[in-house]
Amino acid sequence: MIGHGFMGAAHSQGWRVAPRFFDLPRAVEMAVVVGRNAQAVADAAAKWGWAESATDWRAVIARDDIDVVDIVTPGDSHAEIAIAALQAGKHVLCEKPLANTVAEAEAMTEAAERAAERGIRSMVGFTYRRVPAATFARDLVAAGRIGDVRQVRAEYLQDWLSDADAPLTWRLQKDRAGSGSLGDIGAHAIDLAEYITGLHVERVSGILETLVAERPLMAEGIGLSGTASSERGAVTVDDVALFTGRLSGGALASFEATRFRTGRKNALRVEVSGSTGALSFDLERMNELEFYDATAPDTELGFRRILVTEHDHPYLAPWWPTGHMLGYEHGFSHQVVDFVTAIADGTQPRPSFGDGLHIQRVLDAVERSSEHGSAWLDVE
Amino acid sequence: MIGHGFMGAAHSQGWRVAPRFFDLPRAVEMAVVVGRNAQAVADAAAKWGWAESATDWRAVIARDDIDVVDIVTPGDSHAEIAIAALQAGKHVLCEKPLANTVAEAEAMTEAAERAAERGIRSMVGFTYRRVPAATFARDLVAAGRIGDVRQVRAEYLQDWLSDADAPLTWRLQKDRAGSGSLGDIGAHAIDLAEYITGLHVERVSGILETLVAERPLMAEGIGLSGTASSERGAVTVDDVALFTGRLSGGALASFEATRFRTGRKNALRVEVSGSTGALSFDLERMNELEFYDATAPDTELGFRRILVTEHDHPYLAPWWPTGHMLGYEHGFSHQVVDFVTAIADGTQPRPSFGDGLHIQRVLDAVERSSEHGSAWLDVE
Amino acid sequence: MIGHGFMGAAHSQGWRVAPRFFDLPRAVEMAVVVGRNAQAVADAAAKWGWAESATDWRAVIARDDIDVVDIVTPGDSHAEIAIAALQAGKHVLCEKPLANTVAEAEAMTEAAERAAERGIRSMVGFTYRRVPAATFARDLVAAGRIGDVRQVRAEYLQDWLSDADAPLTWRLQKDRAGSGSLGDIGAHAIDLAEYITGLHVERVSGILETLVAERPLMAEGIGLSGTASSERGAVTVDDVALFTGRLSGGALASFEATRFRTGRKNALRVEVSGSTGALSFDLERMNELEFYDATAPDTELGFRRILVTEHDHPYLAPWWPTGHMLGYEHGFSHQVVDFVTAIADGTQPRPSFGDGLHIQRVLDAVERSSEHGSAWLDVE
Amino acid sequence: MIGHGFMGAAHSQGWRVAPRFFDLPRAVEMAVVVGRNAQAVADAAAKWGWAESATDWRAVIARDDIDVVDIVTPGDSHAEIAIAALQAGKHVLCEKPLANTVAEAEAMTEAAERAAERGIRSMVGFTYRRVPAATFARDLVAAGRIGDVRQVRAEYLQDWLSDADAPLTWRLQKDRAGSGSLGDIGAHAIDLAEYITGLHVERVSGILETLVAERPLMAEGIGLSGTASSERGAVTVDDVALFTGRLSGGALASFEATRFRTGRKNALRVEVSGSTGALSFDLERMNELEFYDATAPDTELGFRRILVTEHDHPYLAPWWPTGHMLGYEHGFSHQVVDFVTAIADGTQPRPSFGDGLHIQRVLDAVERSSEHGSAWLDVE
Repeated sequence: MIGHGFMGAAHSQGWRVAPRFFDLPRAVEMAVVVGRNAQAVADAAAKWGWAESATDWRAVIARDDIDVVDIVTPGDSHAEIAIAALQAGKHVLCEKPLANTVAEAEAMTEAAERAAERGIRSMVGFTYRRVPAATFARDLVAAGRIGDVRQVRAEYLQDWLSDADAPLTWRLQKDRAGSGSLGDIGAHAIDLAEYITGLHVERVSGILETLVAERPLMAEGIGLSGTASSERGAVTVDDVALFTGRLSGGALASFEATRFRTGRKNALRVEVSGSTGALSFDLERMNELEFYDATAPDTELGFRRILVTEHDHPYLAPWWPTGHMLGYEHGFSHQVVDFVTAIADGTQPRPSFGDGLHIQRVLDAVERSSEHGSAWLDVE
Repeated sequence: MIGHGFMGAAHSQGWRVAPRFFDLPRAVEMAVVVGRNAQAVADAAAKWGWAESATDWRAVIARDDIDVVDIVTPGDSHAEIAIAALQAGKHVLCEKPLANTVAEAEAMTEAAERAAERGIRSMVGFTYRRVPAATFARDLVAAGRIGDVRQVRAEYLQDWLSDADAPLTWRLQKDRAGSGSLGDIGAHAIDLAEYITGLHVERVSGILETLVAERPLMAEGIGLSGTASSERGAVTVDDVALFTGRLSGGALASFEATRFRTGRKNALRVEVSGSTGALSFDLERMNELEFYDATAPDTELGFRRILVTEHDHPYLAPWWPTGHMLGYEHGFSHQVVDFVTAIADGTQPRPSFGDGLHIQRVLDAVERSSEHGSAWLDVE
Repeated sequence: MIGHGFMGAAHSQGWRVAPRFFDLPRAVEMAVVVGRNAQAVADAAAKWGWAESATDWRAVIARDDIDVVDIVTPGDSHAEIAIAALQAGKHVLCEKPLANTVAEAEAMTEAAERAAERGIRSMVGFTYRRVPAATFARDLVAAGRIGDVRQVRAEYLQDWLSDADAPLTWRLQKDRAGSGSLGDIGAHAIDLAEYITGLHVERVSGILETLVAERPLMAEGIGLSGTASSERGAVTVDDVALFTGRLSGGALASFEATRFRTGRKNALRVEVSGSTGALSFDLERMNELEFYDATAPDTELGFRRILVTEHDHPYLAPWWPTGHMLGYEHGFSHQVVDFVTAIADGTQPRPSFGDGLHIQRVLDAVERSSEHGSAWLDVE
Repeated sequence: MIGHGFMGAAHSQGWRVAPRFFDLPRAVEMAVVVGRNAQAVADAAAKWGWAESATDWRAVIARDDIDVVDIVTPGDSHAEIAIAALQAGKHVLCEKPLANTVAEAEAMTEAAERAAERGIRSMVGFTYRRVPAATFARDLVAAGRIGDVRQVRAEYLQDWLSDADAPLTWRLQKDRAGSGSLGDIGAHAIDLAEYITGLHVERVSGILETLVAERPLMAEGIGLSGTASSERGAVTVDDVALFTGRLSGGALASFEATRFRTGRKNALRVEVSGSTGALSFDLERMNELEFYDATAPDTELGFRRILVTEHDHPYLAPWWPTGHMLGYEHGFSHQVVDFVTAIADGTQPRPSFGDGLHIQRVLDAVERSSEHGSAWLDVE
């Protein structure tokens, strides 16, 4: 595993737990974690249960006893590492976003396709697809339970910037983060909407906006929080992204990604409205799916709250009895299951780098549309 | 109409509005309202739209141009007025509780049965049966949609006594109110549970409790509120009633009536659990009914939130389009519709005085059970 | 009252009921209802309780014993009637939309302003402002309880066109209805968002879309429903409107009006996100308001569900005790209260014709933006 | 760890994960798992990550390299193992119920108290106390945020017996399971209610009921499910337990434990009503706590939905960012943290065996009350 921040913790938990609950076709060994700072990465190895630590990712990639490279570094290093790993014949799991630019994502996708010809697998980490309620929503759409998709509303609402005095973390600086709400959380909303509906965003019109232009510089800080200083600096990424998408087949999708919806902590919500039904998902109630079957008698119509904790729901069989909840990190175990299974089966795991590239192109088109007065632009 | 308090306002609204939305088989004229205080009742007549006011109910009952007597006085005068009205050949609508004692209720029921032989109709005012969602719940049970009833939970939760310094209103004095939470709101919970299930409470075990024994005397006050004085007096009715009932057919019902469930304002809730489904109603969301169909596939099970505002739902046809809400007083219009229709059709309206007597007997059995250490007692 | 369709019923109920619960400064007499068809309007008068009926609105407007004209006809006749009534010195209540075109609305506003100089009052009927929870939301924003408004999400979601075989009613024909989802329900979303926030939409970018282009012609039909024939005709209004607005002060608002959000029956929802709090309202739960106070300790943050049924909530004092619900038509009583009070007080009731004109201009700008590839356009 | 069923999986996950997220004062090694069947327990060791497996728990307890014994066997063997382990100087974590009889629980408690004098710790596994929302509810009560406790409603609702043809598993046989809904899930409701309020059940009155007396015998089966045969056998445990408790201090608590509340999968709910506030918890939404602060202005009263996922909430600091959910098994990690911390600190972990004994006494009193016509009985 290359990197060991917040995402490193989540991925480590996935690798650790998945083999305990699922019968994986291959044994998993947590071999080595890589970071720049020798002491920090050694601590991370001890904390998260990796056998070794290292500071030179190139040396690790060159090792024969490494089969899989899991990339959880910031987006600006994804391309270099992933391409090198694929060329070295390692299966690659790369955290989202696939890259910070479309060009990088294209190079990665090309490398992934060439590697695939040699049986080398690659996947990008949109783990919310693997929340059982989201996977089950996809299954219901695929089974025709809501008919033709007419409208989609996808939003990812957070509020940690509502306070104008929240400090200027690296996530608010374009040179570090690449993007603001759009790339960080909007990407999830797009991926989940496409995954559930099976449709693609083909054209977009939108606006990116920085609602609070200056914030206190951070005196020191780790992760999302930190201590504010008395000086102020410019926020160089978007606080809010509002955009509309035309989906393959003609349906309309409306998107919102924001860190300013006060009171909404982690509300990744997708509602899909079809000709014979509808589905509504909210990550803040991730064990539930709202399903509306429009073919019921008029007097019995209503959204039903399905607890997606039944043995027959996706991924649920090895977990707990009915009505016992799963949490955030379970998606990382499911990701391990799917990735390892695809490696063993010789099939292409999804979302592929190509899927990740598509999301990057949607993000890029939204950004250009915003620069051109919300003009409608093709995604490709 | 005899009486003109809070219930008088609600009944007046029912008489006024029902003929505007429903095609009643008989024309309604709001003739005369009766009260003890001439000025107050004249004001009430003007305010609530009655053609005349009067102070002598016996004289009004004797009038030939009066066909219907609507009794909304406190419970201790129901028996005398209702029996006199029935004997005078007037159809009688009597607000709940039917009476303050079982003996009075028995006399009223006997009078009602004799009057019925002469085509005179009588009904008791459990209007929550006529909230469309509650009526529809009854319909679903009757249609077998939840199978055999196994368990019932019925509760009526309020919180206006949570504050130990809330004043000692007449509703907290046994000689005035007859009963506390049990008779005032528990009666509704029993009636609604029986109505929806079609079953009867046959045996009970329970406890009545006064949680705050002394309260400030009221300096002055109207209705539920008032100003507290510095002296204190004893609360002589129950604050909370908890009881279990054995229903006809064997199912168990658990009841709670309380004015101490902090934060619950008017939560009359009934949940019926059956062998193939379940229903859940909450008066605080009176336009909704939760319905669970256990015959759905395992993965699609869930309570569905039905907005009971469709044209084909009970009582809904003449009201507003789908998704437009009804409120508290609409039940009083529906009560007028059902009562006037029964008079015109020559059928027995429900709940009959006999139904009201049964509720009184349940209340009485609960009170006796509480006095005997929660012993199980037969209702009759 | 000119007109007697669905809105005529609602307005009639407002005129009938308001004086019974509120102490109005002027007595209300329901004098005459006007319609084209003599028999139909006579029936309406009897049904809704108007003393007379008439077929010539000009003659009615000319009568000295008429003080107020209430216009509930389709939008294309509003301008002619309202201007004539104002010129005749009648106070005018005009149902929304103010008019079908901006030009008409401008003429009406000019007439209203001239009339106001003579003490003649005029108001447009956005009654959802008068749902107590909505009014209270406005009060909380005005009192600074959510700080500076940062983002607004306003949507009006219905689903009666989800079925592609729903018939082609007059509401789907531009020459009759003027507009589709945008004007019919989107207007409410705009008005309510502006009312609650106290801000104005200044610029817009959006798209209107007809998702189902052809539908079965109606063989016969009344109101929203009807019987489909085997022939098909073109839908000439929008099914969906998605647009973004820049509010005065700089906040962003995202709007959606649609008849294709399957399972959503009448979901007029406004969520306002501020620097120190947030509010969320949904007409499908119209007696509730969700309020988030961001100044609470971190561990106690959360949206609270306020039952807006307290004596001290707007409009609530004369209604029922705490926890007893109001319904759709209560807003029409509140409208009567506010209008009659303004007439008696000699103040300008809101929303004024000028407010209605502003809404028309927003609608017009959205329509033009849609025609120009979602370009950002000024509202004026 | 002695035993390796469903609870063994959950406990193993707790031991495995806790050290990765929390800084424990002692290192944890998962040494040996014990079971009767050598092959099955060897498989369990491999699956759940224990270094060794064994079949003789006495031999394991005798080992010097074992510090902690975790008992997850059925209740009838708890006493023998726990007492032996304590006598051997091992710290003991014992899954609930502490024992199947009060006598056994008394012996265990005595052994625990003697062991405590030598610094040996023991704890019983009511893990729902360690769901952060439940722990936080306890903190709010302890901090006086809801004032004096007046009423408690505690219920644990499941529905897996609603179907009368569900097979006769060992959980429905008194000789195997000891108790039905009362001991299996009612125990959790009692413990959680006592934990949150800090009060004790002192007297009880209740009824146990078997709603479906005969069920198909199981042909074969594992865990909660299995295949039904054509023969039928008697259900010898309770399906439903309804009881009322008098709490220390005088408050009333109403309890329900049932496997017949159709549609409720795992609804352990506790609502505590106090003089200045209220709290409501539902395990089906385990990351949320409803909190009502009655000291707010009348117009701003309402239950607020707190997402208990903030850094400052109990147990949350080492987990994920705000708004990321925890699941069922996280409570087992928290249990490990608390148990290991108490061992290192030399303090008594809670719930102690004495706490577990008290719960057994409440269960016993309920059972006896049921046998004596719901008579009120003292718990001791």
